[in-house]
Amino acid sequence: MKERTADWFRALRDRICAAFEALEDEGAHAPALPEAPPGPGRFQRTAWTRTDHSGAPGGGGEMSLMKGRVFEKVGVNISTVYGQFPPDFAKTIPGAEEDPRFFATGISLVAHMANPHVPAVHMNTRFLVTTRAWFGGGADLNPALPREEDTRAFHAELKAACDAHHPDHWPRFSAWCDEYFFIRHRNRARGVGGIFYDYLECPDAATFEAHFAFTRDVGEAFLRAFPPIVRRRMAEPFGPDERRALLRYRGLYAEFNLVYDRGTVFGLRTGGNVEAILMSLPPEARWD
Amino acid sequence: MKERTADWFRALRDRICAAFEALEDEGAHAPALPEAPPGPGRFQRTAWTRTDHSGAPGGGGEMSLMKGRVFEKVGVNISTVYGQFPPDFAKTIPGAEEDPRFFATGISLVAHMANPHVPAVHMNTRFLVTTRAWFGGGADLNPALPREEDTRAFHAELKAACDAHHPDHWPRFSAWCDEYFFIRHRNRARGVGGIFYDYLECPDAATFEAHFAFTRDVGEAFLRAFPPIVRRRMAEPFGPDERRALLRYRGLYAEFNLVYDRGTVFGLRTGGNVEAILMSLPPEARWD
Repeated sequence: MKERTADWFRALRDRICAAFEALEDEGAHAPALPEAPPGPGRFQRTAWTRTDHSGAPGGGGEMSLMKGRVFEKVGVNISTVYGQFPPDFAKTIPGAEEDPRFFATGISLVAHMANPHVPAVHMNTRFLVTTRAWFGGGADLNPALPREEDTRAFHAELKAACDAHHPDHWPRFSAWCDEYFFIRHRNRARGVGGIFYDYLECPDAATFEAHFAFTRDVGEAFLRAFPPIVRRRMAEPFGPDERRALLRYRGLYAEFNLVYDRGTVFGLRTGGNVEAILMSLPPEARWD
Repeated sequence: MKERTADWFRALRDRICAAFEALEDEGAHAPALPEAPPGPGRFQRTAWTRTDHSGAPGGGGEMSLMKGRVFEKVGVNISTVYGQFPPDFAKTIPGAEEDPRFFATGISLVAHMANPHVPAVHMNTRFLVTTRAWFGGGADLNPALPREEDTRAFHAELKAACDAHHPDHWPRFSAWCDEYFFIRHRNRARGVGGIFYDYLECPDAATFEAHFAFTRDVGEAFLRAFPPIVRRRMAEPFGPDERRALLRYRGLYAEFNLVYDRGTVFGLRTGGNVEAILMSLPPEARWD
């Protein structure tokens, strides 16, 4: 299970990076920022390793970062980590209360786009093993200037992936997304929704196969949903007012990630790979 | 005590705003950003009121915000608030464990400067009353491009204010500052130090007078220390590389405030005045 899931996340990473580089090729003449690179962006890959809390080797990951003309900054990270949770944290994780050993593998992606008409996007799926095993993940769209057409198309692909597996998935996971990605102090949603799910438990081989298939379909749905939205918007002209609106929206995005996001806050407070964790932060943001 | 402290914070606010506006006048020909206003900046004042946790009126405050040519964004806030702490929070506050009623008055200031050679700065002092009463506060310098001369001058004024009151103040409060304003996930200090103090308790009139006098002197030291640093640096030429270094440094500053700062996190999570709390965030920042 560990090898199959890790292999899938790696293969998905390769396909996403290829799809995003293809969009850079297509967008070579789209309106770009003054400081954009002269040609289409390409991903730079950086591997990292971690030492576990216990002092033993703890796995690692690969960051893929692209600063392009269409993608102002996009990070696509995979990681496969293992070891023992710190005692305090173990108490909060299902199945780790008695035995703090864990294994986790996953993919995490955040794209901040140069053109204010192209929405930012987040996608993350993961497989965790303690004395229990489960899948979690999600994807949500984060436009500074929302367009009903894009939101509908993004939701439709995720809903189709959900509906193929369980009739409750879409109503439950789309509501969970709206609840999770909410900026309480601003009393507003971070984005326009998608799905968020966690603790899809795998007590046996059959449930593992079912939830792994669902998690793969979330990745496939993302790959079908996002590139057409980029393609539709990346050539739209924009001016300083739209760019300013984008930068202010990104301030809210940074607020959410630094104040509320469970993965970010936990990672920062417990010595995770800072560069990988904070790859989600926007290349430029304004609070003015 | 409540009236005298609140009056002092208000008067200090007025003097700081006047001093900063004078720097805007002096810096009328300093190198400015393309989007800087055509003339010297002036503070805009906005009053706000709050409803207490208990539902009763809970006081309020005034934000003074200036977006100028020398000061890219500076907020000088005063507030005088009272009511009852929420039950969970009351447990964490000295003297509120049994009786959740409180009164708090203070001044809070953060300045983000247009010129990367001028350090940003933070200053905050406050008086709290529960069944106990105490002063707290501090000031620290936050340069993107540190200069030994500026750091020394800033420290010297604060040290003099400390030394005039107690030989332990400077060693204790400067160490507390270094410890508090530390970005753990980056393993680096946010700035170059200053002082941080809290729980200067006032069990009787004599200790109140002593700690109030110290807190006033911190304000006076700030007023003596910061404007000369601005004056010395604001006309220095700078280019895109220095500006970029400033914007990246401000990303770290935003990380500290959103992840670690006690006042920010508590305020955001418990429904404080969001505009006033987040006035500390930089007008522009980069993570690239």
